[in-house]
Amino acid sequence: MMNWTLARRAARLEPSTIREILKLTERAGVISLAGGLPAAEGFPVQAMAEACARVLREHPREALQYAASEGFGPLREWVAAELGRHGLQVQASQVLITTGSQQGLDLVGKVLIDPGSRVAVESPTYLGALLAFAPYEAEFVSIPCDDQGPDPQRLEAAVGARFLYLLPNYQNPSGRCLGVARRQALAARALALGLPIVEDNPYGDLWFDEPPPPPVAAGMGTGAVYLGSFSKVLAPGLRLGYVVAPPTLYPKLLQAKQAADLHTPGFNQRVVHEVVKDGFLDRHVPAIRTRYRAQRDAMQAALERHLPPGCRWTVPVGGMFFWVELPPALDAAALLPQAVDAGVAYVPGAAFYAGDARPNTLRLSFVTVSPERIEQGIAALGRVLAQAVAS
Amino acid sequence: MMNWTLARRAARLEPSTIREILKLTERAGVISLAGGLPAAEGFPVQAMAEACARVLREHPREALQYAASEGFGPLREWVAAELGRHGLQVQASQVLITTGSQQGLDLVGKVLIDPGSRVAVESPTYLGALLAFAPYEAEFVSIPCDDQGPDPQRLEAAVGARFLYLLPNYQNPSGRCLGVARRQALAARALALGLPIVEDNPYGDLWFDEPPPPPVAAGMGTGAVYLGSFSKVLAPGLRLGYVVAPPTLYPKLLQAKQAADLHTPGFNQRVVHEVVKDGFLDRHVPAIRTRYRAQRDAMQAALERHLPPGCRWTVPVGGMFFWVELPPALDAAALLPQAVDAGVAYVPGAAFYAGDARPNTLRLSFVTVSPERIEQGIAALGRVLAQAVAS
Repeated sequence: MMNWTLARRAARLEPSTIREILKLTERAGVISLAGGLPAAEGFPVQAMAEACARVLREHPREALQYAASEGFGPLREWVAAELGRHGLQVQASQVLITTGSQQGLDLVGKVLIDPGSRVAVESPTYLGALLAFAPYEAEFVSIPCDDQGPDPQRLEAAVGARFLYLLPNYQNPSGRCLGVARRQALAARALALGLPIVEDNPYGDLWFDEPPPPPVAAGMGTGAVYLGSFSKVLAPGLRLGYVVAPPTLYPKLLQAKQAADLHTPGFNQRVVHEVVKDGFLDRHVPAIRTRYRAQRDAMQAALERHLPPGCRWTVPVGGMFFWVELPPALDAAALLPQAVDAGVAYVPGAAFYAGDARPNTLRLSFVTVSPERIEQGIAALGRVLAQAVAS
Repeated sequence: MMNWTLARRAARLEPSTIREILKLTERAGVISLAGGLPAAEGFPVQAMAEACARVLREHPREALQYAASEGFGPLREWVAAELGRHGLQVQASQVLITTGSQQGLDLVGKVLIDPGSRVAVESPTYLGALLAFAPYEAEFVSIPCDDQGPDPQRLEAAVGARFLYLLPNYQNPSGRCLGVARRQALAARALALGLPIVEDNPYGDLWFDEPPPPPVAAGMGTGAVYLGSFSKVLAPGLRLGYVVAPPTLYPKLLQAKQAADLHTPGFNQRVVHEVVKDGFLDRHVPAIRTRYRAQRDAMQAALERHLPPGCRWTVPVGGMFFWVELPPALDAAALLPQAVDAGVAYVPGAAFYAGDARPNTLRLSFVTVSPERIEQGIAALGRVLAQAVAS
C-alpha cells in the first residue's frame, strides 16, 4: 500500500454539503427544494440542436480542434457588448471564457490568495466560492450584512484583504438584491479603502419586475473582477462562464487558465455563440422569468400558509431562492433528517457562512419543482417545523 | 488605479512557450511543425453530429442540467473497461472525468504539491505538466533518461518526491516509448523506494506497428495515478480526459474537481459516450494510425534528405513527434527566428526541461501538415541548419 503525501491545502478541500444533501434527496418521493438546479423545462433544446448541427456543418475542424485559452473571439465580443447593455463598459480583450463561472472563482483564488490571505465575504455567502477559495488557504472575514447586503460602514474589517467577494443580484443563498445607493456606497468605500472586489453575477438576468441596478464593478474602475455565467439563462450542462479582469490582472488569470485546462471546450463556445448571437436570449429569458416568478409566487403563498409563527423570510424579487429564518431555538441541520422522512429537502443555512454560522436558517429553491410540488413540499416542511416548535 | 496583490504562486505562472510560438507561426506562408495539433481531417464530424442530435433528442434535460462531479456513469464504466483491455485493471468508481487531461494534471498538483515539494520528472518532459505543477511551487527533480526513458538505477534522486511524473508512450516531446522490461524495472524500483507515480497517456492509441506494453501503473498497485484523454483519438475541442486514482486518493481529487469547475460538461460526456460506446474507436483509430504513420514516414525521409551531418533523431514508433538533436554548438531557440523567416516553425527543446536544458534540441510535429508540406518545411529547416553549421 503506497503512502501518498497530501499537500497541506488538501485538508481544506471538503465535500460540498449541497452535493452530499442532493444524494439524500434522490430517495424516491422526496420533494427537493435543496438543489439550485434550473428548471430543465426551460432549456433551449431545439436551438441547441440546430446550433450543434450548424457548427459541425460550417466549422467542424475549428470547433473540434485545440483553441485559444482566452476563448472564442466572437463570444468574447458578445459578452463585452452584453455587459455594456447592463452598465459595465469592458473590452472584449478583458473577457476570459471559463469552464463555468466556478472555474472563474478557482482561477481568482489561484492568482490572488496566499496561505493566510484574508478574503472578505458576505454573511451568508455562496458556498461554491468558499469551496473554491478555501483550498488556497484563505482566512475568511465575514462582513456584517443587512437585507441590503454588506454594510459599507463595516468594510474596515476587510482592509488588507486580497478582495471582497460580492454577489449583489439575488444572492445565493439569501436571495437579496442590493439597491443602487448601496452599490454606489460599497464601491466608493472599497475604493477609498483600496479594497478590490470580485463580483459574481450568475442570477442577474433572472429578475421578476425590473432589472437589477448596474454592477458594483461599474463604479470600481480597475478595482474589480467580474464573473458571469450562461448556466442560468441557457443550461448549466454546457459549463460556460466568463471572467472580466482589469488589464493588469488578465495575463495571470489567462496563464492560470492555460495551466488548469488549456481552454474551455471550443465546440461549446461556438454552439452557445451560435445560439445567442442574434438576440435569442431577449426572447428566451423572459419565459424563464415568467416561469420562475410564478414559482416564487407559489412558494411565497405556501410559506405564508404552512410555516409556523416565528419563521421569517424576505420575498426575493429575482433569482432562485428563499432564505428562511427559523425561531432561534431551531437547528435546520438537525431537522433535515426529519424533513427528508416527511418528504421534503432543503439546504441548512449554516453551510453558507464562513464563520459565525446561524443554525436557524435554511435555503429553499423555488425553480426546480412545479408549483404543485412546491405546495406539497412546503406543507411537509411546515408540519416538521410546527412539531419542532411545539416540542 | 487599484493595486492588486498577487499570490506568491502567481510568479510561477508563465505564458506557455508553445502558445507564444504558435502565434509566430500564424504568419502567412509559415509551415508549422511546432504545434501538437491532431490532424483535423481525422475528426469524426459525422459521428459527432449524429451523437449530438441523438443526445438532445433522447436525454436533453439530463445532458444540459448540472451533473455529478465524478462524471457520467456510463462513460466512467466505458473507460474502466477500455483500460482493462490495455492491461490496467480498475473500477469505474476510480475514474474521474476531467475537462481535458490537462485538468487532471492541475488537480494532481493541487492535491499533492506543497510549496517546496519535490516532483520528479523525465528529462525532457511534457511542458503542460510543468506548467500545471509549477504554480503549486514544486521543486522539479529531473531523472536522467536514455532512449528507453528514466533510468531505474537513477530513481534514488527522486526519493522523498511527492511523485514521479511519467509519460511512457510516445512521449511529448521525445517521441520515445518505454519497453516492457524498462516499465517493469521502473515500477519495481518505484515501489521499493516508496515513490508514487503519475502516469500520463495521451498518445498510447497512436501506435504504428504494435501497441505499446501495458502501463507502468499496472505494476504499481495503489502507487499510481493514471491519466488519459479523448483529445488524440476523437477531438481536443471537446476537452475530455480522465484521471484514475487509488481509492484513498480519489475523494480529494474529486473535491478538488468540485472546487475547480463542479463537473466536466455533461453534454460533451454524453456525446462522446454515444460515439464510443459501440466500438467506434476500433474502426476510427486505425485510420488515424495509417495517416500518422505515412506522415511519420514522410518526415523521416525528409530529415534524412535535408538535415546536415551532426543532427540526430530517433524514429518514433507512435505518437506525433520527432525529437532532433542538433550539433552541440547550435541553439534551437536562437535559430527559430531565421527558421520562421525561411518558412518553417518548430518548438525549441529547452522548453521541455525542468532544469539543465539542452539548447541544441527541437521538437517537430508530423501530424498537423500534409506530407508535401512536411517535405517543404524540413527542406527549409535543413537550409537554415546547414547555414548555421557552416557559419
